[in-house]
Amino acid sequence: MARIFWAEEDGLPAGDRGAAYGDGLFETILMRGQQGALVARHLERMVRDATRLGIPVTRRQLQDAYAQAVNRYGDASSAAPWVLKLVLTRGAGGRGYRPDPGMEPNLQIQAAPAPPRPYPDGVDVEFSRVPLTVNPLLAGIKSLNRLEQVMAAREIQDGLFEVIQSNARGELVEGSRTNLLLATDAGWFSPPRADLAVVGVMRQWVLERLRARGEQVTESPILPEHVLGDGCRGFYLLNSVLGVVSVGRLAGQDLPVDGGLATICDPLQTLE
Amino acid sequence: MARIFWAEEDGLPAGDRGAAYGDGLFETILMRGQQGALVARHLERMVRDATRLGIPVTRRQLQDAYAQAVNRYGDASSAAPWVLKLVLTRGAGGRGYRPDPGMEPNLQIQAAPAPPRPYPDGVDVEFSRVPLTVNPLLAGIKSLNRLEQVMAAREIQDGLFEVIQSNARGELVEGSRTNLLLATDAGWFSPPRADLAVVGVMRQWVLERLRARGEQVTESPILPEHVLGDGCRGFYLLNSVLGVVSVGRLAGQDLPVDGGLATICDPLQTLE
Repeated sequence: MARIFWAEEDGLPAGDRGAAYGDGLFETILMRGQQGALVARHLERMVRDATRLGIPVTRRQLQDAYAQAVNRYGDASSAAPWVLKLVLTRGAGGRGYRPDPGMEPNLQIQAAPAPPRPYPDGVDVEFSRVPLTVNPLLAGIKSLNRLEQVMAAREIQDGLFEVIQSNARGELVEGSRTNLLLATDAGWFSPPRADLAVVGVMRQWVLERLRARGEQVTESPILPEHVLGDGCRGFYLLNSVLGVVSVGRLAGQDLPVDGGLATICDPLQTLE
Repeated sequence: MARIFWAEEDGLPAGDRGAAYGDGLFETILMRGQQGALVARHLERMVRDATRLGIPVTRRQLQDAYAQAVNRYGDASSAAPWVLKLVLTRGAGGRGYRPDPGMEPNLQIQAAPAPPRPYPDGVDVEFSRVPLTVNPLLAGIKSLNRLEQVMAAREIQDGLFEVIQSNARGELVEGSRTNLLLATDAGWFSPPRADLAVVGVMRQWVLERLRARGEQVTESPILPEHVLGDGCRGFYLLNSVLGVVSVGRLAGQDLPVDGGLATICDPLQTLE
C-alpha cells in the first residue's frame, strides 16, 4: 500500500527518495467539480510506468486514492476546472541510490487551479537551446527527473507559450510540457514513442481519435523544415491539462492556425 | 539566502521543486568529528553547478551552513566517520516546470553514518544493463535527477559492490555512485568530464594528485576490453565518501588488486 500525504498538510518525509533522487513519477489530471478527464488513462499509465521503475502500486490503490482526492478537493457545485496532481515515490529508505526491498511507496496528492485555456488564436513558440536526452530504459515515463524540462521552461519569457526541444539528431521531440503533432497534406505526424521523454496521455488519446476518424497518422521524426516548410497545415501542442493548442508562430514564422482539432479533442468532453 | 531545513526536524515543504522535478543538486561529505574531507572542493562544486542551473547561492552561504551543520552533528570526541549531506533545491513555487524569478532556494541538511571502508582485498563489480545518458547542458552536475543511477543500483545484489554503466557508444562511463580510473603500463585513464553524469570531487582530487606525482593521466573513453585485457594493471572506483576502491573482479574476471592508490589518496588525510 502506498502511504498518502495530502500536500496542504504535509510535505514528503525527509528521507523520501522522490526528493533525494527524483525516484518516482507523477500525473496531472484536468478536473471539473468531482469529475476528471481521461482519468482511467492517467491511472493506468501510472501503474504501468511504476511497474517499469519497480515501484509497487496497483490500479485499485490509485483508484481509491483518486476517489479520496475527489471527495476532498472536488466541489460538485463549481464549474471551474482544477488540476489534481498525484506524485508517487519509491518511499523513504535504502542505502544511497540502492533501494531496500519491500519499501512502501509514498503518494503525495495535491489540488491546484487549472491554467487558462483554450488558445483559439494560436500561441507563440520558440526552439529551445536545451537539448533533450532520453534514456531508452526510462523513455516515456513521467518521472520526477524533469531537470531538462525545467531548464527549457526557464527560456519561456515575454509572451512565449512554449519551447520545443530537439534530440541529438536535430529532430523536434517535445515541448517542455507538451507532445507534438504536425498536420500536413500527407496526414498527421507525431514523434515516435521511443524518442519521447514523456508519452503524454493527451497525445495517445488524440492519435486514437484521429485514427478512429480514418485519418492517416504516422509516428516518425519531425524536423524543423517539416514544420516551417510549405507542407505544414498546422502544428499542435498536446497536454492533458491544456488540451490541444495550435501554434500560431514558431521561431518568428507564422503558421496556419486551426481550432478544429482543439474542439474535436477537448479533454473536458471526457469527464468521467 | 537559502532557507535551511534540518532533516531530522522537517521534510522539504510540499511545493518544493526538488521533490517535484529533481530541481536541485546535492553533496555528500565524508566527516570525522568536526572535520570534513575535501570540504572546499565540495562547496565550490555546489556553488559552480548551482550557478549552471540558475540557483542562486554563494560560497559564503554554504560555508555558513556547513559550519552550523558541523556544530550540530559533529562530535569532536568521536573518531567515527560520518557523512554530511547537503541538498540544495530551487525552492518552492513557479508555474509547472517554469520557476518564478527571485525564488528562494531551500537547503536540506542531514547527517548519516558513513558506509564501511576501506576494501583492501578488492570488490566484485558487474556491467550494468542500465545505459547512461548525459545531457550536455547538465553533464557532470550532481543534480537530484538520479533515476538512472537508482535503476542501476537496483542491480547491486548478492555481494556485488557496484555496477558500471556504459553510454550509447559502448564506453564505460561511471559506476552507479563512483567515477572510474584505469591503471595501465601506458599510464592512468579516466573517462572525459564531458561524458560524465557526475564529475566527482574525489575523481578530480585523485587525478590532480597523480599528475602532481608526475604520473601520466589521460582523460579519454574506456572500453570494456581495456579493463578486461592484458594491459590492465588495476581498475578503481572513486567516490568522496568511499575513497579509492580497487576492483578485484569485473564480470566474473579477476583483476589485479593494488591498495597503493587507496593509501596515497585516502580522503581522511584531507580533513580540514
